[in-house]
Amino acid sequence: MKQETEEKQDFVKEVTKMSDDFDRWYTDVVRKAELADWSGVRGMMVVRPYGWAMWEAITRAFDDMIKESGHENWAFPLLIPREYLMKEAEHIEGFAPEVAWVTRAGGNMEELEEPLAVRPTSETIIGPLIKRYIQSHRDLPKLTNQWNSVVRWEMRSRLFLRSREFWWQEGHTFHAYAQEAMDEVALILGYYRAIAEDWLAIPVLTGKKSPAETFPGAVHTLTLEGLMRDGQALQTGTSHYFGQNFSRAYDISFSNKDNERELCYSTSWGISTRLVGALVMAHGDDSGIIVPPKVAPIQVIVVPIFRDDEGRAKVERFINSWAPDLKAAGIRHRVDWRDERPGDKYAHWELKGVPLRLNVGGRDADAGQVEMVDRLTRQKVSVPVSGIAARLGDELDGFQKKLFERAQKFQRDNTFELETLEEVVAHFRERGGFVWSHWCGEEADEARIKAEAGGVTIRTIEEMNKPSGKCLVCGKPAKYRVSLAKAY
Amino acid sequence: MKQETEEKQDFVKEVTKMSDDFDRWYTDVVRKAELADWSGVRGMMVVRPYGWAMWEAITRAFDDMIKESGHENWAFPLLIPREYLMKEAEHIEGFAPEVAWVTRAGGNMEELEEPLAVRPTSETIIGPLIKRYIQSHRDLPKLTNQWNSVVRWEMRSRLFLRSREFWWQEGHTFHAYAQEAMDEVALILGYYRAIAEDWLAIPVLTGKKSPAETFPGAVHTLTLEGLMRDGQALQTGTSHYFGQNFSRAYDISFSNKDNERELCYSTSWGISTRLVGALVMAHGDDSGIIVPPKVAPIQVIVVPIFRDDEGRAKVERFINSWAPDLKAAGIRHRVDWRDERPGDKYAHWELKGVPLRLNVGGRDADAGQVEMVDRLTRQKVSVPVSGIAARLGDELDGFQKKLFERAQKFQRDNTFELETLEEVVAHFRERGGFVWSHWCGEEADEARIKAEAGGVTIRTIEEMNKPSGKCLVCGKPAKYRVSLAKAY
Repeated sequence: MKQETEEKQDFVKEVTKMSDDFDRWYTDVVRKAELADWSGVRGMMVVRPYGWAMWEAITRAFDDMIKESGHENWAFPLLIPREYLMKEAEHIEGFAPEVAWVTRAGGNMEELEEPLAVRPTSETIIGPLIKRYIQSHRDLPKLTNQWNSVVRWEMRSRLFLRSREFWWQEGHTFHAYAQEAMDEVALILGYYRAIAEDWLAIPVLTGKKSPAETFPGAVHTLTLEGLMRDGQALQTGTSHYFGQNFSRAYDISFSNKDNERELCYSTSWGISTRLVGALVMAHGDDSGIIVPPKVAPIQVIVVPIFRDDEGRAKVERFINSWAPDLKAAGIRHRVDWRDERPGDKYAHWELKGVPLRLNVGGRDADAGQVEMVDRLTRQKVSVPVSGIAARLGDELDGFQKKLFERAQKFQRDNTFELETLEEVVAHFRERGGFVWSHWCGEEADEARIKAEAGGVTIRTIEEMNKPSGKCLVCGKPAKYRVSLAKAY
Repeated sequence: MKQETEEKQDFVKEVTKMSDDFDRWYTDVVRKAELADWSGVRGMMVVRPYGWAMWEAITRAFDDMIKESGHENWAFPLLIPREYLMKEAEHIEGFAPEVAWVTRAGGNMEELEEPLAVRPTSETIIGPLIKRYIQSHRDLPKLTNQWNSVVRWEMRSRLFLRSREFWWQEGHTFHAYAQEAMDEVALILGYYRAIAEDWLAIPVLTGKKSPAETFPGAVHTLTLEGLMRDGQALQTGTSHYFGQNFSRAYDISFSNKDNERELCYSTSWGISTRLVGALVMAHGDDSGIIVPPKVAPIQVIVVPIFRDDEGRAKVERFINSWAPDLKAAGIRHRVDWRDERPGDKYAHWELKGVPLRLNVGGRDADAGQVEMVDRLTRQKVSVPVSGIAARLGDELDGFQKKLFERAQKFQRDNTFELETLEEVVAHFRERGGFVWSHWCGEEADEARIKAEAGGVTIRTIEEMNKPSGKCLVCGKPAKYRVSLAKAY
């Protein structure tokens, strides 16, 4: 997205069609569906209740998962002394260009002795803090997590995907054994897959990042890559294994069973509000966004249809006779009594991607039924109000499943197998998707793919037990099977 | 607390007794019970899982309350342009001395065109943002809330009570009518009372702040004041009515039913992690803290007692036969299998204030019972394991009630009625507590109380319908009945 769009704060009148211009469609629906806006503070967004409620649903699901496996939430400081930030060389090289600095404070804006970084991520403050709480192997593993926002001074911005502040969880764990730390990184990757697939209905490709794309300071980074409807990949979470890199920089050690000092093995991992952007781009259509029921702030919207006060009273009595059943069943629903025409209401809730709509008029009241419309298929079905809560529960489960299957089919239809850089370049000139190929492991070849195929990057690498196939660039025997895509 | 204590990061070996030195006791138990520590970043704390879990329990309870009454969570930016901050004169006068400023960003730490404040509170960013979403009276009320942390450059620090970063919720609401906004402020005060009394078992005195103690920019501030065990008051929440002050500064207007532009009436309100400090100081004793069951991360601690492996196996089988019932009943419990002596474990969990302890030995296993010890009374009771989950549920409810009654009695025993400044001065030379008296309303007299009675302040004022009584300072007819106390 171009910066000028950020400045344009006026009302979005008409939503661009996805099929006409995906980028503009995205910004339009995010704003018009009331998910988020630019805040007026350059590069920083405001997340509105409808968007924030989706993030809250994700946070609750993930928080339950990590607590079940013994992780604990902490609150670490927002501001990090420069000296701390500077200790892990690779890490600071990666992050320094994006740091915002607090340099003054108090009534006269006095200059601080040492600048404090607004955390871009918290490895460098958690390291020096956590070591106090680790003496012996009995204090390990230390499985920490925190929910917060971080600041990275991005120069390009896109709502939810790239902004100077975003909200996330960052897990940081410390272990006595390398294998245990690697297992942790894989465990979390599994949780992230569950969030993406079971909650957001976004099928993901998972794997390791190439060394060039690995988190600064990590030994290896595991990633999840979803496919958006424009054919571009979006990283929906990462889980990093640090080996002893950070423990060495911050001297995080423990006495092992033989009473010798040893450095910890550590990890970090995060998912962020970018997932809200992911669900928009993975599921939308020309009419707006489509929200997976499990994270939908409103799962069922009820639109009453009537001509006059008498008609309204009748419909209202009817709705009141079964709406409490929905509440009791935990179905998140709302009745739209706004003073608008039904057709405008339909369009409004389609734009906002509410999974199920119930149209309820006087004749429905007489017949003891409602008209149910599904945001995905737009099929209209009559549903008797007797047992409606259980029926809607089933329909929502079915909707979640259908949405995932639709995304799975899209991913399958847009996954290819190619052998040479020429083929890859030609492919991405025409279309997007994931392309599987082979790579020798040379960074120069990786850079050539990016340069020649218009920004295409290696999304994941898989080491092959038995070498087979040739590097798509140099033709030498390949070490890795790799997935390629254009990515956000 | 003195700043040097912050620097002292070594292990707290022995906890000072509350009766010997309340201030040191407080810092010792907060650290030793693993609630929080100083972070090494001056004035900023790290909240550890045991403390954070208490805050999470509070957040969940309060979040449910406000959502039930139609409030919605938003995420507003962390950084506020100086220009925004400067618009409400009284507000900026109150907060400017405490603001931390981001002035540089990026790889070369380039100077920003305009400094950005790290939010000390968000009125000045929410005002200019929310006005976009308010056109007509149909868009009102706008009931917003956010959970975040804020930064205030405090020069004195005390864990949970005063630190350069703290965690809170800040509600900001916008209304078409003054009365509706005043009702909102009162509604929230009621929620805060429920949090303090029903969840934290801290009885509170509520009322208005004097003009000198009112939030900068507010028309009036409602407050809750709890009494700590050293006799000092602690403000546990505030709810502010702004009238049209902020709407005037930020031009937050709407078209009313007669299609005329009118300024909104607005409010803001907050409770913070200081509540964790409040529960420590309201309920502790010489052995440590006492955590109200409703917010206790661990409500029941099970201490197995055995001599050898065989004994351990027997006790473990026994515990495993009923512990799942506790889990199923939602009782937060843990079994302490650490390699320590039972006596040390007892002291450890008493320090951490776990409401109920179950001692379980081989003979208990034979008898099908456990020994239950209550953190408050220390009474030991045999409890049969048949039906133990329901019994413990009742015991926890009873504990919550007893704790509140104990605090109520303490508050009653430490509330006095005095008539002259001399009496007040004499009183506070000897002891603490709340003192009720009368005040004419003159700021000079309020200042004299503070100066002569060693920092005693007016905690709440109540306008009297019928004037009665004389001002404790000047002897003129009083306008207000006031409560006085030394306060944190």
